[in-house]
Amino acid sequence: MLFKVEMDVNVPLDFDPAKFEELKAAEKAKFQELQKAGTWRHIWRVVGQYSNVSIFDVESNAQLHDILVALPLYPFMDVRVVALCRHPSSLHDDDR
Amino acid sequence: MLFKVEMDVNVPLDFDPAKFEELKAAEKAKFQELQKAGTWRHIWRVVGQYSNVSIFDVESNAQLHDILVALPLYPFMDVRVVALCRHPSSLHDDDR
Amino acid sequence: MLFKVEMDVNVPLDFDPAKFEELKAAEKAKFQELQKAGTWRHIWRVVGQYSNVSIFDVESNAQLHDILVALPLYPFMDVRVVALCRHPSSLHDDDR
Amino acid sequence: MLFKVEMDVNVPLDFDPAKFEELKAAEKAKFQELQKAGTWRHIWRVVGQYSNVSIFDVESNAQLHDILVALPLYPFMDVRVVALCRHPSSLHDDDR
Amino acid sequence: MLFKVEMDVNVPLDFDPAKFEELKAAEKAKFQELQKAGTWRHIWRVVGQYSNVSIFDVESNAQLHDILVALPLYPFMDVRVVALCRHPSSLHDDDR
Amino acid sequence: MLFKVEMDVNVPLDFDPAKFEELKAAEKAKFQELQKAGTWRHIWRVVGQYSNVSIFDVESNAQLHDILVALPLYPFMDVRVVALCRHPSSLHDDDR
Amino acid sequence: MLFKVEMDVNVPLDFDPAKFEELKAAEKAKFQELQKAGTWRHIWRVVGQYSNVSIFDVESNAQLHDILVALPLYPFMDVRVVALCRHPSSLHDDDR
Amino acid sequence: MLFKVEMDVNVPLDFDPAKFEELKAAEKAKFQELQKAGTWRHIWRVVGQYSNVSIFDVESNAQLHDILVALPLYPFMDVRVVALCRHPSSLHDDDR
Amino acid sequence: MLFKVEMDVNVPLDFDPAKFEELKAAEKAKFQELQKAGTWRHIWRVVGQYSNVSIFDVESNAQLHDILVALPLYPFMDVRVVALCRHPSSLHDDDR
Amino acid sequence: MLFKVEMDVNVPLDFDPAKFEELKAAEKAKFQELQKAGTWRHIWRVVGQYSNVSIFDVESNAQLHDILVALPLYPFMDVRVVALCRHPSSLHDDDR
Repeated sequence: MLFKVEMDVNVPLDFDPAKFEELKAAEKAKFQELQKAGTWRHIWRVVGQYSNVSIFDVESNAQLHDILVALPLYPFMDVRVVALCRHPSSLHDDDR
Repeated sequence: MLFKVEMDVNVPLDFDPAKFEELKAAEKAKFQELQKAGTWRHIWRVVGQYSNVSIFDVESNAQLHDILVALPLYPFMDVRVVALCRHPSSLHDDDR
Repeated sequence: MLFKVEMDVNVPLDFDPAKFEELKAAEKAKFQELQKAGTWRHIWRVVGQYSNVSIFDVESNAQLHDILVALPLYPFMDVRVVALCRHPSSLHDDDR
Repeated sequence: MLFKVEMDVNVPLDFDPAKFEELKAAEKAKFQELQKAGTWRHIWRVVGQYSNVSIFDVESNAQLHDILVALPLYPFMDVRVVALCRHPSSLHDDDR
Repeated sequence: MLFKVEMDVNVPLDFDPAKFEELKAAEKAKFQELQKAGTWRHIWRVVGQYSNVSIFDVESNAQLHDILVALPLYPFMDVRVVALCRHPSSLHDDDR
Repeated sequence: MLFKVEMDVNVPLDFDPAKFEELKAAEKAKFQELQKAGTWRHIWRVVGQYSNVSIFDVESNAQLHDILVALPLYPFMDVRVVALCRHPSSLHDDDR
Repeated sequence: MLFKVEMDVNVPLDFDPAKFEELKAAEKAKFQELQKAGTWRHIWRVVGQYSNVSIFDVESNAQLHDILVALPLYPFMDVRVVALCRHPSSLHDDDR
Repeated sequence: MLFKVEMDVNVPLDFDPAKFEELKAAEKAKFQELQKAGTWRHIWRVVGQYSNVSIFDVESNAQLHDILVALPLYPFMDVRVVALCRHPSSLHDDDR
Repeated sequence: MLFKVEMDVNVPLDFDPAKFEELKAAEKAKFQELQKAGTWRHIWRVVGQYSNVSIFDVESNAQLHDILVALPLYPFMDVRVVALCRHPSSLHDDDR
Repeated sequence: MLFKVEMDVNVPLDFDPAKFEELKAAEKAKFQELQKAGTWRHIWRVVGQYSNVSIFDVESNAQLHDILVALPLYPFMDVRVVALCRHPSSLHDDDR
């Protein structure tokens, strides 16, 4: 099942940069693991923002919840989740 | 260049259904032409809404504008456009 | 899978009351069919509004979409959909 | 009487994690006591958020107020309360 | 139980004035019946608006809902309901 | 003259509780003095919030301003003021 | 007593222009009567809008309400009322 | 040229009161200098808020900007600026 | 003096297209006259909207108001006006 | 390609002024480099705010993103990006 997830990352001005780089590296590793698994199907950056637009393909709502709240940068994020489904006009059988 | 475009379609209760079906058919044909061309790269339905989330891949802002305002259902739409770019963590070379 | 769905019904002042009663009766019949099936798991009225708060239990996002847009009163509705999941603190195994 | 209560929990980045775990444990204990009593009738997690959607069944507005402001995590919460009532179309006599 | 109810009345420019005067007279009669019964405990006009701020004292959420949706001007109203309770600092035993 | 005043109290998580209890006691004393004087005519708690809905009966806008900004908890408050007047349908001569 | 009143005028595209000119003339006459009386103390246009910012000096909330709802263009207006008072830093004794 | 300027002052709970009194005294002196010059033409307090509604009469947009950002309390302010012009119905030649 | 003006054009679905084309032609003529005069200094289309972002260079607030409300499409527009001034970092002497 | 970018700068009250002046000088240098290159085509100050309205002319969405997030004051900014295109009514061939 497909979901649009939009994530805004807010870093306090005085947060330790070294600690944040660590968290970013962990986030990237987690993202790539989920991308390889086909779960985090798409990600795009929003121009001018520390934000992304993502498409997740999950087994269940619970799986999506567990993935999101375990992200290393989750404590810094505002997250918006919208349930999607396949569009009947699409010509691509695997357009997920 | 990539853009997220979200379209909400609002049909007045008293709009002629036959006329609207015609416009929907024209919209679908136009969509599929643009999908085949790789311009309208992704489309998903928003659950419970007459709305979609789409990803466009265009040459320029002007091309995107011309495509959107020429859509058969454009006069019924609220449209939100957000400029995107490739995410540096993505493993997929062609993740557009 | 569980979703909270909130529906506001907006009836134009000059809509034919007999026609609207027909649609309401069809809506009620559809609701009860879905309630018996366990799909429309809960419904409550919002005090002072022509609105409800509902909990749906569906197989997929697509099933929820198809149910909602086929409701007889759908053309009169504003609909808000929020994906839910079971709460880990709940003592009720079947609290869906 | 029924109320929908939505709670968002906001934890400052620098709040002592051990102290917060204590508060969470106390919150869970209080929740389960109220769930067993039939007062906190339903609870669901909102996907991707530290938030829940709950249904309370209380004797009075005052009882609901006293319960909510005494929750161990109340100082961290944004709370939204909406008065509900039984829906006349419901087939379940005890659908509260 | 106490509720703050705020009602905004929106009359279309082209609504038949004689018909509206009839509805207003019916609304006033209903209001005074409820005021005598102690149910519609307070009403104030909002300066510059066709709106009121009211305090209702009802047996249950359901009673409040039934009263509001049966008001003659209800189809013209936007209604906002907020659950209240007695304030512990109040010196008036009957301050409802 | 009548005004609806709504006050939300926001206490920082790390504010000294003993200091806050002192301010609350001073607020209560001030409130009761104003209630006895007939100036702070009504107060109700908003269910689930650290907020109240109040009705003030004052000589002038300036008097209301002076009262509000001198409240011991004013530095913690968001305040919303709405000018009211007597409703012509009211049967109570002294419904203020 | 002083109030800031902001009025936005919304004229439907198909409203009879001759009828509207009549209402505008009546509005202007009423405005000038109130300006001479010192009640409608100031009026300014908002650049680019069919809106004004006004300062009223009235005896009571009720007087302000009666003036506003009797304006010939009132049925076309959105009105926002804010209670003001004299500023203690002002050097002008009659700055109302 | 005329502008409506609305200023909300937000003082952190822990800001040094002596330092703030100094800034307020400097603000008052600056205000009175501008009022005498006819530049800060009107000021009113908003009831219940640490806010004012002001009318400025300036030579240019740039002059207004330079005045506002140099106010001693500017770092504590939210400021909203709206361009105004004389209203054609006004009877007062100097109603600025 | 410089102003950012943003205009959204809203055309009712059932507005006579021939009449609207006339108004658009008149709007274009008026725009070009003002562009040649240096008053309507810049105009850009907003991608995907029937909206523009414009920069006006006018003698006074009143001149801007008179220009805007006289535009042929003004009755169809939502207009937002923001006062601007030259930026001190700009290297272009005539950057208006 | 053209974009409107609006930037609000928020400086915490207790941020080191000397450090901030350094960042401002770096920002100005970067701005002028981009202005000379024709990339940061226009900039205007918003009256009364620490904000600007800018027009960027870039090769791609990605170029705009890289420029914005590298600005020395970016960590203090709220940024809003809107895609623009040339307006067909414009008489200026190079109106970008």
